[in-house]
Amino acid sequence: MMAVLVNGFVCKEPKQVQADDFFFTGLDKPGNTNNKVGSNVTQVNVAQIAGLNTLGVSLVRIDYAPYGLNAPHTHPRATEILTVLEGTLYVGFVTSNPDNRLITKILQKGDVFVFPINLIHFQFNIGHTNAIAIAGLSSQNPGTITIANAVFGSNPPISDDVLAKAFQVDKKIIDYLQSQFGMKN
Amino acid sequence: MMAVLVNGFVCKEPKQVQADDFFFTGLDKPGNTNNKVGSNVTQVNVAQIAGLNTLGVSLVRIDYAPYGLNAPHTHPRATEILTVLEGTLYVGFVTSNPDNRLITKILQKGDVFVFPINLIHFQFNIGHTNAIAIAGLSSQNPGTITIANAVFGSNPPISDDVLAKAFQVDKKIIDYLQSQFGMKN
Amino acid sequence: MMAVLVNGFVCKEPKQVQADDFFFTGLDKPGNTNNKVGSNVTQVNVAQIAGLNTLGVSLVRIDYAPYGLNAPHTHPRATEILTVLEGTLYVGFVTSNPDNRLITKILQKGDVFVFPINLIHFQFNIGHTNAIAIAGLSSQNPGTITIANAVFGSNPPISDDVLAKAFQVDKKIIDYLQSQFGMKN
Amino acid sequence: MMAVLVNGFVCKEPKQVQADDFFFTGLDKPGNTNNKVGSNVTQVNVAQIAGLNTLGVSLVRIDYAPYGLNAPHTHPRATEILTVLEGTLYVGFVTSNPDNRLITKILQKGDVFVFPINLIHFQFNIGHTNAIAIAGLSSQNPGTITIANAVFGSNPPISDDVLAKAFQVDKKIIDYLQSQFGMKN
Amino acid sequence: MMAVLVNGFVCKEPKQVQADDFFFTGLDKPGNTNNKVGSNVTQVNVAQIAGLNTLGVSLVRIDYAPYGLNAPHTHPRATEILTVLEGTLYVGFVTSNPDNRLITKILQKGDVFVFPINLIHFQFNIGHTNAIAIAGLSSQNPGTITIANAVFGSNPPISDDVLAKAFQVDKKIIDYLQSQFGMKN
Amino acid sequence: MMAVLVNGFVCKEPKQVQADDFFFTGLDKPGNTNNKVGSNVTQVNVAQIAGLNTLGVSLVRIDYAPYGLNAPHTHPRATEILTVLEGTLYVGFVTSNPDNRLITKILQKGDVFVFPINLIHFQFNIGHTNAIAIAGLSSQNPGTITIANAVFGSNPPISDDVLAKAFQVDKKIIDYLQSQFGMKN
Repeated sequence: MMAVLVNGFVCKEPKQVQADDFFFTGLDKPGNTNNKVGSNVTQVNVAQIAGLNTLGVSLVRIDYAPYGLNAPHTHPRATEILTVLEGTLYVGFVTSNPDNRLITKILQKGDVFVFPINLIHFQFNIGHTNAIAIAGLSSQNPGTITIANAVFGSNPPISDDVLAKAFQVDKKIIDYLQSQFGMKN
Repeated sequence: MMAVLVNGFVCKEPKQVQADDFFFTGLDKPGNTNNKVGSNVTQVNVAQIAGLNTLGVSLVRIDYAPYGLNAPHTHPRATEILTVLEGTLYVGFVTSNPDNRLITKILQKGDVFVFPINLIHFQFNIGHTNAIAIAGLSSQNPGTITIANAVFGSNPPISDDVLAKAFQVDKKIIDYLQSQFGMKN
Repeated sequence: MMAVLVNGFVCKEPKQVQADDFFFTGLDKPGNTNNKVGSNVTQVNVAQIAGLNTLGVSLVRIDYAPYGLNAPHTHPRATEILTVLEGTLYVGFVTSNPDNRLITKILQKGDVFVFPINLIHFQFNIGHTNAIAIAGLSSQNPGTITIANAVFGSNPPISDDVLAKAFQVDKKIIDYLQSQFGMKN
Repeated sequence: MMAVLVNGFVCKEPKQVQADDFFFTGLDKPGNTNNKVGSNVTQVNVAQIAGLNTLGVSLVRIDYAPYGLNAPHTHPRATEILTVLEGTLYVGFVTSNPDNRLITKILQKGDVFVFPINLIHFQFNIGHTNAIAIAGLSSQNPGTITIANAVFGSNPPISDDVLAKAFQVDKKIIDYLQSQFGMKN
Repeated sequence: MMAVLVNGFVCKEPKQVQADDFFFTGLDKPGNTNNKVGSNVTQVNVAQIAGLNTLGVSLVRIDYAPYGLNAPHTHPRATEILTVLEGTLYVGFVTSNPDNRLITKILQKGDVFVFPINLIHFQFNIGHTNAIAIAGLSSQNPGTITIANAVFGSNPPISDDVLAKAFQVDKKIIDYLQSQFGMKN
Repeated sequence: MMAVLVNGFVCKEPKQVQADDFFFTGLDKPGNTNNKVGSNVTQVNVAQIAGLNTLGVSLVRIDYAPYGLNAPHTHPRATEILTVLEGTLYVGFVTSNPDNRLITKILQKGDVFVFPINLIHFQFNIGHTNAIAIAGLSSQNPGTITIANAVFGSNPPISDDVLAKAFQVDKKIIDYLQSQFGMKN
């Protein structure tokens, strides 16, 4: 028997869906922030809940150690609306060319902020304690492009000729930046 | 000067947007559940955050008193993905004709559940304490149709001839139901 | 050989389509209105005409016995535009929260009325003779949620605790309403 | 006060909509087929019913004198699903390059046929009596391009150099064809 | 193993895509204009580049012999934006009913012109030398309907009763036009 | 008189459109590549051709000096399909998390390559002569985010605390990178 595929995911017959096709558990558990940036994103999208396919929304929980950073990134298919459950976050996004304006805000518990689709944005825990946020995203499969990793940590690496010209610095600095992400040109 | 209107909302020039166009505060505050159903929905959509216009996502906080109910309703323009912050909720949705299957789940803190776009759904606090949920919705302007209020509490009321036939009961029962919502035929 | 599936329906190669893939016969035949509500909907959508897949439109014929009712319902994926071929219909729809305004009209032969996507609407034959309507819908697969059946006739039934609180009445009345749809809590 | 415009049409505040914003009367009246092709289309779209704006559907009534023709045309923004109320129609559409297959069917009362979006299609009354059809279209503003009129009757006319080469005939034949639509090169 | 199909085309797993899935070669080669209309379209769409699927854009190169014509046609799924690389083109499109306005322009090297989705349009080389254009189209699968071929060269042919009435001429002229496209009624 | 606005741009009445509303001239003129990266993009989108509004496509011409770079960037609203008119380009894009795969190709005259919507991509002239490319984009208003400029040249600058942690380097390096774009923390 052939399964019905929509957007590359399997779709069940409506008569066969079960409550568990719409269910996920564990969003109350802190993610592990013991990493270089001190943050962790727990995703609840179509990869975790099959029933979200075609429905255009997903959730994430983000944990931040003190001074933890959710590094500058974009979501190619989603706007994000985030609310702070615990802690204090310094957040921002940058508008597109030619202005590249940085729009920032310091958020406390209960504050809500919007990161428009595909703009580069970040959240930084500026408090002495852990911080927690919950965010809704406008896609069941938002995708994430972490700028530093995509630019300096791609596999294989982008040529340092390209990056030296783009960032207007010497190749040695590019090579150093790439080495931070385990890359060698 | 004429403002630019998109979807009926005012759009600012990109050069004039400010952080506050993407900001809302107060989602940590409990809503007032001192009402007939014992629940309260705090909305954070394009009516509260102008910058959400066209971006296709919004948030809500839902508070439930013990045995409080977010009564059966639909969102004409949004799927909802909900996570429980505190308490225990019995939740469900009903599929469309001809099956009208009821899909239910009991949710604890940290559980996540999806209510597909436009299906009738509800959440019921089955615990002895207050419950709190946060949900993402796949529209900046989801809309809500509370079934009991739309059917028995519309203004003016739907004719009891129509409702008696639809619900297969005597007009007296319809009139009684309507009177619960302050309606008189 | 594997068939190509789009939206869960089989798609033929353009070279293999035949006139019958775009054809249906029998919309001149009255539907059987010998049922509790005295109405019948004959659908012509992607389930009847495979060639409609992805094309975003369908038709229905609705027959009404005298005093027959097309009971309050929503279409999760379609706006409906209806014209009366025979008879006199009292029609209406209810707007969403917080207003729940009832918008109604009495339609005669040749009149046209629009029921916006996902709003609860109905048609009631207020004449002494049969009535007939034809309607276009803005989806090849509009779906239908009949409110009374989804709320009081779901399978399994919605808990009477939930419905008693939603409709602000005693559980006995809920149980009686559910029993009209063959349900027992 | 400035009106809110969506898709170039005025949108009313939801609180101000009236039943008449969703209403049209007169689709039971035969259109005047006393013209060169012997057919007439009565349109019920956003130009007639303002409330249809953004809702993605419309209706037409088509009247055909004996041997009347709804000449080959396309709808740039809509698929059409047509049902015959009276008479016998020979209908067809042509697929796109490179096959240009003609798909035809003879329709009787109660038959339904689909004309996919933007394909060239026609209906021809092959009976001795008047024929009537009702059709749903998948846009509130479908648009119509009548091929003969757009090609040979545009204002100003297309150069006969262009048309002679396109239709592979002498300019005299092109000029004759254009003259049938009141054009002179 | 079953391939994943989206829009009827095979989709690769993101991990398996290769540069060649996004690559086509040969757009610098002139197309063969040795045909009745003296023009040739080289297409680069999803049929040539599998990786274009769902991405909503494609390219074409158009070659024109002196006095060569890209005959009146429509693209059912795309707007076209064309720029002239070599030569001089007389281009135009016709608006829809009821105006059927012809909008034209003479284009030189470096000029750009837009043909809105689904309107009948053409380009005619009015220079003494070959002309070349490149155009972007707003679909990975735009489709083309060449009016003369669809109307007078369909397979099987459209009845000359239909065409004689549509073009307001004698059947002999229709038969002659059809014979230019190899058709016999 | 109030103009009709769609997507924030003025829309003309169909009866008032002129050929010049669909026209742009000068795409044969080389852009000025005398800048730090040695490339120049000439845009032809809705800002240059008002008639493109809502039509979902645009063109660009890109000029590259020898060793000129169109630096890593994204288009938030468009896929790009590019063809090389002159010269030799080394092009690439990076996939999203977690793989960050770099997909590259060396393109010669007549080669075509696709950069999927919102992925970071670049073109680098690896030849000794000027290079020229033309590209179609799947939006009338694609937008561009140049990564180096948005991250290290935003106005005001992103805090070097944030960037030092994101790029895993000392603040001095971040400050040096920012100073290349005229920024001071």
